[in-house]
Amino acid sequence: MYEKDLNIPMLLDFYGELLTEKQRDTMLAYYEDDMSLGEIALQNQITRQGVRDSIKRGEEQLRNYEERLGLVARMQETLVKVSKIKEKIEEIKEINSKTSMVLDINSRANDILSTIDEISY
Amino acid sequence: MYEKDLNIPMLLDFYGELLTEKQRDTMLAYYEDDMSLGEIALQNQITRQGVRDSIKRGEEQLRNYEERLGLVARMQETLVKVSKIKEKIEEIKEINSKTSMVLDINSRANDILSTIDEISY
Repeated sequence: MYEKDLNIPMLLDFYGELLTEKQRDTMLAYYEDDMSLGEIALQNQITRQGVRDSIKRGEEQLRNYEERLGLVARMQETLVKVSKIKEKIEEIKEINSKTSMVLDINSRANDILSTIDEISY
Repeated sequence: MYEKDLNIPMLLDFYGELLTEKQRDTMLAYYEDDMSLGEIALQNQITRQGVRDSIKRGEEQLRNYEERLGLVARMQETLVKVSKIKEKIEEIKEINSKTSMVLDINSRANDILSTIDEISY
């Protein structure tokens, strides 16, 4: 079994459109639809080894794009900051509930949490 | 004078590494160092028209990358949400100052504002 790289789905999401359509389809079949090398080979009428090589090449290209552009890393930095914001908001809610029960503050804190939940990579 | 597209600096920041080094340098000279077409031409010993064509081609490539990948748009959506968070935090600070003067809440709100200021595209 060819080992999956857990970073690939995110790289594929960011840079997949820079691959050829055929290569992207193969990568998606393997990484998103969770098809086996054998199943992909059968579907495309190529050898299992051919599929494996194609996926390996695709992975290299994706890693190379990230090395040059670093946009996944940039988004991940943002997400780290966003999760810090989330922690602080939870603290505000807790302090508020213990001290003054100011509902206006809680309602805003909840709005912020909903907004944060909408932010994804 | 060739008209500058104000979206190009951000596209250049995201996708500049996908251009050739020469083309990227030309685009940076024009868009970041604010050199004129004539100055860039002189420096590279090509015609002014050659510089202009090269910049136009670079712009098209950058727009094409954004059309395919949409990563600038994605980051901009995040920034819109982040600015909503910022507004709400300012509201929390205001309510807090009017009602209960809970310093713990203000200190957390200020932490969040600092974190938000660190998030950029």
